[in-house]
Amino acid sequence: MPSPTAAMLVIGDEILSGRTRDANMHFLAGEFTRHGIDLTEVRIVSDKPEAIVSALNALRAGHDYVVTSGGIGPTHDDITADCVAQAFGVGIDVRDDARALLQAHYDRQGAELNAARLRMARIPDGARLIDNPVSVAPGFSIGNVHVMAGVPAVFQAMVASVLPTLTGGAPLLSQTLRIQRGEGDIAGPLAALAQEFDDLQFGSYPYQKDGVYGANVVVRGTDGARVDAAMTRLAALFPPG
Amino acid sequence: MPSPTAAMLVIGDEILSGRTRDANMHFLAGEFTRHGIDLTEVRIVSDKPEAIVSALNALRAGHDYVVTSGGIGPTHDDITADCVAQAFGVGIDVRDDARALLQAHYDRQGAELNAARLRMARIPDGARLIDNPVSVAPGFSIGNVHVMAGVPAVFQAMVASVLPTLTGGAPLLSQTLRIQRGEGDIAGPLAALAQEFDDLQFGSYPYQKDGVYGANVVVRGTDGARVDAAMTRLAALFPPG
Repeated sequence: MPSPTAAMLVIGDEILSGRTRDANMHFLAGEFTRHGIDLTEVRIVSDKPEAIVSALNALRAGHDYVVTSGGIGPTHDDITADCVAQAFGVGIDVRDDARALLQAHYDRQGAELNAARLRMARIPDGARLIDNPVSVAPGFSIGNVHVMAGVPAVFQAMVASVLPTLTGGAPLLSQTLRIQRGEGDIAGPLAALAQEFDDLQFGSYPYQKDGVYGANVVVRGTDGARVDAAMTRLAALFPPG
Repeated sequence: MPSPTAAMLVIGDEILSGRTRDANMHFLAGEFTRHGIDLTEVRIVSDKPEAIVSALNALRAGHDYVVTSGGIGPTHDDITADCVAQAFGVGIDVRDDARALLQAHYDRQGAELNAARLRMARIPDGARLIDNPVSVAPGFSIGNVHVMAGVPAVFQAMVASVLPTLTGGAPLLSQTLRIQRGEGDIAGPLAALAQEFDDLQFGSYPYQKDGVYGANVVVRGTDGARVDAAMTRLAALFPPG
């Protein structure tokens, strides 16, 4: 059975302007790989409703799972929840259970649940809340889309809440051989090996550092014995030194 | 005059599997911002021809400029050049000027220009070469698409070659105020200020670290005097301490 596929939608001008370097994509990629879910596409769009809605509709139609990050806070540029409701063609309003979570949190803090904070209780109709143990304001899941915060600590906690509920395939195993030869010397024998082991994926990732160059060749697959067999052949083709 | 818009297409399984953390997007975002080009979308796709071709065609139709990174080396998983030719509906073959660059390079190194390395001289018909001062194998530009290597040092050198040839708008200026208050307290006054200065963009980026929380509020615009004026008002709204 092939692994389920997933896409990620990162929402945020701060990444596209170069102000912030995204960390959530790299985190999610690793978690999905371990869970046997194949992350096959990521899109990063700016805080514009039409960009968010159209990317979301394209991704949710083409993948088993979609995770979004960013744009669910209390400020005027936090428009993700409204865009998700629009993409699904459902209503959105403050929901009692989300409001109760926020009310209890701000009561404990002695802060007011003002109009801005109450925006974080706006949940599209039919969605399920995602627990936020870090800062309480929830994410939500609707259809195959899981809407999470952009702050990395919160994003990671939300991924931990949702991941056990997603059906994964066999985890993708990988082994790497660091080969201190130019990719141009590796390429021919590697292509032949990839053709022979066509149930596995072979990637070649060149490096150049301090005058030394070569490539990390990565073999990936779900059958550990096959990956081992390919690595043995690879090591024989390219002995060290 | 509005700034030209750009998109980036990152090609590579190694980023989607979580093996490598992309660095090129963050670099390009910063360079484009300084050059007055508005990076409005990034897509990351796997090494699959149909994914690359369809993303490229969507992005080049919707933006003034497109930059791609990755997949132009000598190994079997380097398929970007062929996909670009397919997307543009043009032929692709080894080109004499590109071959001459590689031949001279490998002659100097005492290495053979074998079949794998010669693949790096395959250039779509009608493209212009992009200089690669790091490792010689060229990138290329065709239409509004600029095809660059994925290795960060090479990518950065290629961006430096191409950027002066692209028409930019007025550089986007930004100033940041770090406000040690919850976003929920900032949101109301900030939204009102954003409405008043509707020629500027206001972003709020929360942080939480070591028990201290607050938000970095960023004001962006091309008119320095207006950004200054908005920052003065913002500082008055949220005095420190």
